[in-house]
This record gives sequence, C-alpha cells and structure tokens, in this order.
Amino acid sequence: MGQTIFFNNMPPIISHSAIGGKKEKEGNLSGSFDYLSDDQYFGQKTWEQAESHMQAMAINTVLNKTQLKNNDINFIFAGDLINQCVCSTYALRDFEIPFFGIYGACSTMAEGMILAAAMVNAQYGQRAIAVTSSHFSSAERQFRTPLSYGSQRTPTAQWTVTGAGAVLIDSAGGPEKAKIKAATVGKIIDYEITDTCNMGAAMAPAAADTILNFIKDASINIADIDHFITGDLGVYGSELLIELLKKDNIDITEKHLDCGKMIYDTENQDTHAGGSGCGCAASVFCGHILPKLESGELKNIVFCATGALMSPTLSQQGETIPGIAHLLQITGGGL
Amino acid sequence: MGQTIFFNNMPPIISHSAIGGKKEKEGNLSGSFDYLSDDQYFGQKTWEQAESHMQAMAINTVLNKTQLKNNDINFIFAGDLINQCVCSTYALRDFEIPFFGIYGACSTMAEGMILAAAMVNAQYGQRAIAVTSSHFSSAERQFRTPLSYGSQRTPTAQWTVTGAGAVLIDSAGGPEKAKIKAATVGKIIDYEITDTCNMGAAMAPAAADTILNFIKDASINIADIDHFITGDLGVYGSELLIELLKKDNIDITEKHLDCGKMIYDTENQDTHAGGSGCGCAASVFCGHILPKLESGELKNIVFCATGALMSPTLSQQGETIPGIAHLLQITGGGL
Repeated sequence: MGQTIFFNNMPPIISHSAIGGKKEKEGNLSGSFDYLSDDQYFGQKTWEQAESHMQAMAINTVLNKTQLKNNDINFIFAGDLINQCVCSTYALRDFEIPFFGIYGACSTMAEGMILAAAMVNAQYGQRAIAVTSSHFSSAERQFRTPLSYGSQRTPTAQWTVTGAGAVLIDSAGGPEKAKIKAATVGKIIDYEITDTCNMGAAMAPAAADTILNFIKDASINIADIDHFITGDLGVYGSELLIELLKKDNIDITEKHLDCGKMIYDTENQDTHAGGSGCGCAASVFCGHILPKLESGELKNIVFCATGALMSPTLSQQGETIPGIAHLLQITGGGL
Repeated sequence: MGQTIFFNNMPPIISHSAIGGKKEKEGNLSGSFDYLSDDQYFGQKTWEQAESHMQAMAINTVLNKTQLKNNDINFIFAGDLINQCVCSTYALRDFEIPFFGIYGACSTMAEGMILAAAMVNAQYGQRAIAVTSSHFSSAERQFRTPLSYGSQRTPTAQWTVTGAGAVLIDSAGGPEKAKIKAATVGKIIDYEITDTCNMGAAMAPAAADTILNFIKDASINIADIDHFITGDLGVYGSELLIELLKKDNIDITEKHLDCGKMIYDTENQDTHAGGSGCGCAASVFCGHILPKLESGELKNIVFCATGALMSPTLSQQGETIPGIAHLLQITGGGL
C-alpha cells in the first residue's frame, strides 16, 4: 500500500517565520531569520520559557505578515523536544486556537505541516498553522548533561539549534505562494543504532525509506526535483542517506541539502556534525527555503525532516534508537 | 469561528480493544477488557517496556478482531505520557505502519480519534488506528515520586490507570458499527490551578469550554445525547465541570459519566478521586462504551477526553497547569 497523500487542492503556504538565537546569528543563514536574539533567555527566566517565547514569536510573526488574527486560524499543530511538549503548550496558551499536540522529535515541522495541509485540503477549516522549536540549553540539560558540567562532545554529535519556525497554510492563498503537492508519512525504522551522540546514523535509514516510498508512490523522476532537503541528518547522517539510496539505484548526491549542514559555519562554530533539533529544520525551511520557492528560484522541492524517537530513560535501559522521517513535496510560486 | 468538524462520511469504528492490569481487573469494569494482566510488568523487564507491550497488544487485538494485517492500515496515531512518547514509538516499531506521533496528555485518545477520523473521512486512506496507553508505575516515577518512597496521596489525587485502548476506523465499515459524526478540537484553557495533585480541577475548565463550543456549533439539544462522557476528571473535576456548565445554563448532571469515576471501586480500591492517565479514557471508551453503541443500548454519545498539559519541570518553575479537551460525537450502530 502506498504511503503518500496527494493534495488535490495543493494548499498554499501564505506566511512563514523563522526565529533564532546568538549562534544562529553567527551562522551561515543569519540573513534568513525574521528575528535573532543575542540573549539566550529571550528576556525570560528559564530556558524552557525562552523556547516557549520563541514559538509565540514565530506564531505572532506569521500572523503579523498576513494581518490575520489568532481567531482567524482554525487549527494549530505544535510540538517540541522538551518533556510533555511544554514549550509548545505554554506558548499556545494565550492564542486560543484549537490545538493538536504532536510529537515527531526533529521531524515535528514536517509532521505538523502534513497534518495542517491535510486539514486545509479537506476543507475542515480554511487556515492552519504548524509550528515547532528547539533550544540548545533546554535540550542539552534534558537529553545529555547539564551545560555546567562542561562535558566533551564527540565528532558525530550535533548542536541543537536555538530556533523556531512556523508556517500558515490558507486555502485562499494566491498563485505566488509555495504549495503543498504531496506528502509521504513515515514509518518507524530502527537500524539498531545505540550511540545517542550519533543521531544522524539513527535517522538516515528512516529518511531513505520515506524518500524511496515517495519516489515510488509519486512516480518521481529525480531530475524534476530541484533539491531533496533533509532536516538534521548532519554531516555523517547525510553521507549514510546517500549511501543507502544508492543501494536502491537512486543517486541524490547532486540534489541533496541538509538543514543541519547548512545552518552553521561548522569549521568556525565548533558545531561538529552540524545543527539538529526541531528548530533546525523548521527555521531553515521557513526562513531560507520558502522564500526561494516564492521567488521562483526553486520550483519543486522535497522537504524530509527526520526524528530520533528515543528518550534518555529508554537509552539507559539499553534500547536502540528508532528513527522516523516525514516528507512533503512543495512547488514554487507561479506554478 | 466554530471549532467543530462535521464528518460527512461518518467514519465507522470497525474494531476496538482494551488492555488492563491487576487493579483494573479488581475494578468495576473488569468484564469490559480484552485482556487483564496480574503481572505489572506484562512479562517485560521495565515499566516502560510493559506499557509499550500493552500498546502493541491493543493494536494486535484490533487487527485480530478484523483479520486485517498491519500493512492494511494507512495511518496510526499514537502517544502517551512518558517522556518523548516512547511507550508508543517502541510499541509501533515492529508494525511498519505510517505513523503520526501525538501528545495530548490524557486527552490523547480523543485527539488521535479525531485525526484518524479526519484522514479516513477525507479519503486520504481507507483505514486508520488510534491507540494510547498509561501505566501506574511509569507515570508515578516520572510525574510524582518513585513508588519505593511510599509517599502519601492527597484526597484529590487520581490513580493512573494501567491500560491501553485502540480503535480501528475503516471507511468501509458496516451499518452495525459506531460512527464518528462530529468532533470539536479543544483550545488550551488555563484557570491557573497549581496543585499537581488536583488535575481534575485543572482540566474541568477545558472540558466545559469544548462542550459549550460543541453544543453551540452543532446546535445540540442536550436531550438528544445519551451521555456526555469525560475522560478522567475524577470526582472533583466532574463536580467542577457540572458547576461551570450551569453558569452557561447547561445542565448535564443526569447525562454525565466520567471514565475516571467508573473504572475503579473507589471506596474499596484506595483510588481517591478516581482513575486517570491516557489509558483510562482509552480503555473505558473502547472496552465499555463502544460495545453499548454497537448493541444499540446507546444511540448518541459525546466522548470528551481531557488532558493536563503540564510537566514536572514547568511546575517546579512555578507554572500553572493548562488543560485541553477534545470531543467526538459518536452515534450507535444501525442508525
């Protein structure tokens, strides 16, 4: 059975936003963000509150760009890495928008966009927002070691992006907007990786599986896709993805981009294998990729965000790290 | 703007399952479960693995009742209370079904059913499963204190159900099946409750808001609904819900049931304000309510599962407890 949804109404993304922190400001894509904060706390008291604040900023920014209000939005899909997805729920508390909480680890932006597009395409409502975030400090404390321990990072480790991204999908969007054409919903894939400092390796098999299924379901000719853009496989995960696809005679070497590899100046920013976190794929896709789709520089892309579906508790119990990848095919404005 | 979706194809629930533990076996509804385990570990080594095992059992049971296989299912929606929703992701790893991870705290069963119904109703696929679980011991350790501390429970505290429930929605279901007619997607509501041992109070305002919006959007006459069934408000939350609705001149006193109040023999089982957890609403709805809709004993019910969207980290930072409630209107077989 195919696992790709084809959206007959091709819901348009009418507005998008990207929020980042200090390291993102010093990175390769600083010009792509709507707002960059030098303050790791974003004026709040805790890292979790800072992350919530970023999500609220991302939502306010997509609304402000359209002059729509919170009560013009039918549904919002949001989630994040922090336990019980609280950075999302506390961010959304004041917006009073019907809310679906989601959890796809670092694939959350793609998962939320698929569900938001599905709701708008089916005309359950005219407008839906998908939003997510991550924060280096809240993630380090929860998933690895408290920052104050000053622990060493392995070469395969990635740097959690302090950032948020949001899209607003509106069935009444104009022809100049990027449009969601199809989506492939990922299956959980576990290649029995146990190294929690090598998430790229854990997620790459899921990306390969989802991309292969999309190509098959949609009868895609690789030449017709400008880029296959993964979320945060990083340096090593990206290599693995390309190797895995080659085994199925698919070569995306020239077409592949990875948000985790793009966001930082890895050589000078000490970010090792690249960026990661829900906010990585979200901010790079919303801030850097979507404008190129609107300008016509890109015409047809695949956005495939990946997530590692583990937890510190289960890793301590000896479990391997299952991965997932959700994919959207998005076409440029004017098409 | 209304927040209720009306499903024109009224997707049928063709199969359902309920799994429970020892305390559930000793409770009021032991006859409603498909499987009850005397072993808190369900033959596994850890409580988290036990909870995962319950979810896998719930999925296998819905499949076995229909003779469908995992690859006949287009989408599965799953989530749970444990950090990073790992009881779901590890349970689903072997099923290879396209997966959407969701997080709605104890409202997860209703959230998953709404999204599964939305996907099937829109014909994105023929079949979708919604599943969730909770486990007393994994939840106590994570949210409160390790069991071995033997801490006292307050009178307003609830007892996390060790249980799982699953539904299989299939657009080709027969006339004898229960059907999902409409759904109201909840907004996050925060009445600034800070007592983490009184979740019923934190969630009741969200239930009242969602129920009021449903009654307004669907122009419902209370007399036409057999029961308004909430998830796990418990004794005190249920009282609050009825009080809050009375302020809007809605009296559901005679129509109200709460899964948290029904599942245990509270007087003899020391469960204080009643059952709670994702598995409470899920197992009671799937095991006890759905059969009555199929037999014709119930003709038209509202299922409204509530969740407290907090985390121990945010509570320790002094935050209040936001609540959410998702609602489905479900009609009986033969209608």
